[in-house]
Amino acid sequence: MSQSPVPQPISVATSAAAPSHRLLANAIRFLAMDAVQQANSGHPGAPMGMADIAQVLWCGHLKHNPGNPNWANRDRFVLSNGHGSMLLYALLHLSGYPLSIEEIKRFRQMGSHTAGHPEHDLHLGIETTTGPLGQGIANAVGMALAEKLLAAQFNRPGLEIVDHHTYVCLGDGCLMEGISHEACSLAGTLKLNKLIAFYDDNGISIDGEVQGWFTDDTPKRFAAYGWHVVANVDGHDPAAIERAIQAAKLSNQPSLICCKTIIGFGAPNKQGTEATHGAALGVEEVAAARKQLDWPYPAFEIPAEIRAAWDAHKAGAAAEQSWNDLFAHYRKQFPELAVEFTRRVQGELPLDIQQALDTAIATAVEAAATVATRQASQQTLNLIGPRLPEFLAGSADLTGSNNTNRKDTKAITSEDFSGNYLHYGVREFGMAAIMNGLALHGGFIPYGGTFLVFSDYARNALRMSALMRQRVIYVFTHDSIGLGEDGPTHQPVEHVASLRIIPNMQTWRPCDTVETAVSWGAAVQHATGPTALVLSRQALPFQARSSQQTADIARGGYVLVDSQGMPELILIATGSEVALAVDAAKQLTAAGKRVRVVSMPNVTLFANQDQAYREQVLPSAVTARVAIEAGVPESWWRYVGVKGAVIGMNSFGASAPAKDLFKHFGFTIENVVQVAQRVLAA
Amino acid sequence: MSQSPVPQPISVATSAAAPSHRLLANAIRFLAMDAVQQANSGHPGAPMGMADIAQVLWCGHLKHNPGNPNWANRDRFVLSNGHGSMLLYALLHLSGYPLSIEEIKRFRQMGSHTAGHPEHDLHLGIETTTGPLGQGIANAVGMALAEKLLAAQFNRPGLEIVDHHTYVCLGDGCLMEGISHEACSLAGTLKLNKLIAFYDDNGISIDGEVQGWFTDDTPKRFAAYGWHVVANVDGHDPAAIERAIQAAKLSNQPSLICCKTIIGFGAPNKQGTEATHGAALGVEEVAAARKQLDWPYPAFEIPAEIRAAWDAHKAGAAAEQSWNDLFAHYRKQFPELAVEFTRRVQGELPLDIQQALDTAIATAVEAAATVATRQASQQTLNLIGPRLPEFLAGSADLTGSNNTNRKDTKAITSEDFSGNYLHYGVREFGMAAIMNGLALHGGFIPYGGTFLVFSDYARNALRMSALMRQRVIYVFTHDSIGLGEDGPTHQPVEHVASLRIIPNMQTWRPCDTVETAVSWGAAVQHATGPTALVLSRQALPFQARSSQQTADIARGGYVLVDSQGMPELILIATGSEVALAVDAAKQLTAAGKRVRVVSMPNVTLFANQDQAYREQVLPSAVTARVAIEAGVPESWWRYVGVKGAVIGMNSFGASAPAKDLFKHFGFTIENVVQVAQRVLAA
Repeated sequence: MSQSPVPQPISVATSAAAPSHRLLANAIRFLAMDAVQQANSGHPGAPMGMADIAQVLWCGHLKHNPGNPNWANRDRFVLSNGHGSMLLYALLHLSGYPLSIEEIKRFRQMGSHTAGHPEHDLHLGIETTTGPLGQGIANAVGMALAEKLLAAQFNRPGLEIVDHHTYVCLGDGCLMEGISHEACSLAGTLKLNKLIAFYDDNGISIDGEVQGWFTDDTPKRFAAYGWHVVANVDGHDPAAIERAIQAAKLSNQPSLICCKTIIGFGAPNKQGTEATHGAALGVEEVAAARKQLDWPYPAFEIPAEIRAAWDAHKAGAAAEQSWNDLFAHYRKQFPELAVEFTRRVQGELPLDIQQALDTAIATAVEAAATVATRQASQQTLNLIGPRLPEFLAGSADLTGSNNTNRKDTKAITSEDFSGNYLHYGVREFGMAAIMNGLALHGGFIPYGGTFLVFSDYARNALRMSALMRQRVIYVFTHDSIGLGEDGPTHQPVEHVASLRIIPNMQTWRPCDTVETAVSWGAAVQHATGPTALVLSRQALPFQARSSQQTADIARGGYVLVDSQGMPELILIATGSEVALAVDAAKQLTAAGKRVRVVSMPNVTLFANQDQAYREQVLPSAVTARVAIEAGVPESWWRYVGVKGAVIGMNSFGASAPAKDLFKHFGFTIENVVQVAQRVLAA
Repeated sequence: MSQSPVPQPISVATSAAAPSHRLLANAIRFLAMDAVQQANSGHPGAPMGMADIAQVLWCGHLKHNPGNPNWANRDRFVLSNGHGSMLLYALLHLSGYPLSIEEIKRFRQMGSHTAGHPEHDLHLGIETTTGPLGQGIANAVGMALAEKLLAAQFNRPGLEIVDHHTYVCLGDGCLMEGISHEACSLAGTLKLNKLIAFYDDNGISIDGEVQGWFTDDTPKRFAAYGWHVVANVDGHDPAAIERAIQAAKLSNQPSLICCKTIIGFGAPNKQGTEATHGAALGVEEVAAARKQLDWPYPAFEIPAEIRAAWDAHKAGAAAEQSWNDLFAHYRKQFPELAVEFTRRVQGELPLDIQQALDTAIATAVEAAATVATRQASQQTLNLIGPRLPEFLAGSADLTGSNNTNRKDTKAITSEDFSGNYLHYGVREFGMAAIMNGLALHGGFIPYGGTFLVFSDYARNALRMSALMRQRVIYVFTHDSIGLGEDGPTHQPVEHVASLRIIPNMQTWRPCDTVETAVSWGAAVQHATGPTALVLSRQALPFQARSSQQTADIARGGYVLVDSQGMPELILIATGSEVALAVDAAKQLTAAGKRVRVVSMPNVTLFANQDQAYREQVLPSAVTARVAIEAGVPESWWRYVGVKGAVIGMNSFGASAPAKDLFKHFGFTIENVVQVAQRVLAA
């Protein structure tokens, strides 16, 4: 980081005519100070430091309509340093979004719309949830990419219905996080020139002055990524900010505008220090700031002329109307495209999707093939992909292993955005957060692959998909020791269980081609949250089913093989262990036992079925139960009970051929039979 | 990435006198090709591409002794692109480490020492486990840092007993991963000049030519971090490699040597393509390579003169002897320091540590204080820290929140390595992987803090601590909705459960000062694996205990409050919910119920106690059980059984003051009593 001296605060000049830039910016500062003070909790420093930048951007450039936060062609604004949430709330409030002053007063209180960190709520104009540092910039990369892709798919000469910028604010923390490297490197490769980022270079992080732990030459770093960098902008000089934005808009590269700012600008005794970062300034310092910035108004009071200058309703309505007119022309010339565009941005599936999904299932049933579920996944994708132009496929450099490509996929490049397959590179976390951005932007259902074990790398972005309830589909292949020789670093053990416990995440571990097709159908139709598809490297045998059984897959768990009469033992399994359970059941049945096999590809979904169905599948009277899964046992105690047993992994795996590993770790018919007999005898 | 043309392979020239560089390098190539071919699985391309670099480094620079892989002052060598494991195995085998040709033949087979990816095994000279990309370079940063720190602590003028380099090989994948940004940025800030990295710039990753997804100007990027960069080195020209290493050794910055290489060098039809990356070349191509490289020897046969030229026993023994002589001088002049140095590098705790730990516990008992467990942690650290000079403390920019600093901590800077506190910056994943490197190097017990929710960011490095069984201590504070206003992005819900299921990880969630002190003691004394300490933001009441109860904390779970006579109900809780359980038990007891409260700060440890103890704490006869934990319920089904209940979190949290949240989510005496009565009535 360059260490040139930061500018000193200047005194405020007001004019009788129109409120000055600084006055408008100070409205943000005092809303932030007062709200944090009232909550006695929060982060005033960043909003105060970035107020001048935000004012120039929002009052002069941001194309948006507070009257319709859902306008498809709006500019996107992302606050990647989400702890500065009061900056965003102040901007939304002042611009006229339905975020009242009462909500500002209820900052960080139960049930308010002004949470400690911004939470995705399009109704209010909050484009994404931020706070976990670095993910906002990655979301923004996804949004900027979505714009490029939609533009390539829908724009026609003279009818550029998709044409907006994505603006993002970020701080030192975002830039230290590794994900900023992944996302920004890829943004540079893709030349996402409508992505414009403002670096709030205030030299302070929580531990103090960053020069002790962050000395990157950030402009040089971003130049190395192929970004257009505007260095050394005075973040409190509106003219300098304006020039930088104009230069950024002209660039054919993504832009980083490096703004030297003073954290807590306006707090006379605390500004420029970490004391303003994450705590209320205190009543006295807030009062002193009122003097320093010549702001005589009481807390939460904004003078009418300042409100009027901020109000973006009129300009926003005009901007949208102009676009509506354009879109009317478009609709006239390209009526089918217009309908399709509307469908896409509203996130509605094609009318014939159910048919395509049914066909995929029927095809799998008919083929009765023994293939790896990662291949079954690709077969399903080949059938449904062409019907889902919103599918945006990709892999973190494991395309041939994840089988995420299809017959109809085409690579996206910086020269050609008409493709539908993104080579994310070895960037799992970046991929997941970019997919969140694609989904948030609208127009796409992103899916992306990596090895299941590397879901770890992306984990907090998976959590953010779930927290924001975004339709993002994770394709996690090589799902157990079954991957074999690559060894324990690559063998998931705890991962399936750890995915299942992320709230709102749907995790599927299908056992064959049919369950895989059903899983994909469920994932595509699950509009209110992410899905993880957990797939095998190795071939898994096809399981025969009645049509009722096939239909019941969608309930998450069902009876795959049943005993004659009431079972005395239930084997529960998922994925690659279902065939083992079936084989063990055969042997136990031959020995005179009444054995039921339950396949439970989606534990969460099964748990959410009504009591009657659950009781039908797992009758309370049958307490002899054995769960079999090549992972840690924690998911299964709930169903096997104290008298039951789990055959799982209690250690990391090892490097060897898969068949040797399954034998070594007890995933054999002999062991299942033995454990089952012990449970039956207990 | 610069795109200058890669050099073409040259034919091999052998001499009667000493084997040529190329001949020595080819020994690596054929061991790699033949082992992968025999396993019919593995990655031949990277070892073949990097063989020339490795030969120059290992034969000309690496200071090591195959006769004693544990020599404290050896150079460290890390293969960050761990899929090229055969490079390392070939180097170790040829240099004379106890890795026989039979082991090479058993590459990737059950029980061999030649796993698909290198697995930490100091006996064989494998310094760290690699494969999950980017973590090896971060481990290497930790090792290079350890060297600096140990040198500052122990070296005396003319007696530089700590003086070695850390070498690391890395590929495009490592450089794309975000963790490379975190670790290398910090290495630049700290000016770790004895860290020398070789970038295997072969232009290929699994999906093909990287220019489609990775176009960084890597030399510029590393220059931005403050590294010394040697760009455009021909990775097949030994003289160029030699010059680059010599320049790197003279630099006062960490060095990146960018080597243009041909992946699969020597395979005439496949070299330079992704076909050599992750699969056996095939019998024909291996035969063709034998012709191409003029290598007439059968598989796994290395001519004696080539073996002799590689054998590092003699040089290694001489190098170590020279150091032993130096250390003898050192011991003479600084006998106490010499004893201490030996203790440190052998990983033995000070003799008086038990006393210090006992004192910490006794002090907590006596103070009977109601404080947050993060503060209790700091109080413990203040007592034991001064007795543990191997403690290497730090935080990912949350020092004041994690309370990881102590009265006796001092910041480490690039100018002064005599400190013991590292400001890692906002780099959770980098911190964890650097701590792994510190622990692997020896001489340190690293501990580092972040918010529990951000354990997600570091998760795969936690897994690597566990897989390598390294004594790394994670201080995870703000452990539930109890953190309050920061909201769901910062509130862990699934994290405690997800840490508990990582094999070999010890996870503690203490309920008060005493349990916190015991947890720290267990963490410090747990030499064979990592520990996660899960601590509250908010104050937790002190719990009174008998001395037996205090002693039983170390068993992971124990009876904290008991009923008169056999209980009819057991409440199980951890951390902040223990006090709630105790209060609810009081109310239930007043209502005539016989209630036991079990505090279970470490579920894994409790599960590993003998059956008699577990039965004593949780008698089978008592089936009415309620577990209470402000997280997902999955850890508890095992103990509450089908008749019991779990009061946990089934969704993400919310932004509000903590007390409001606990009430909202049902963590109230009323709710616990109500659930307990329902369970009792069932």
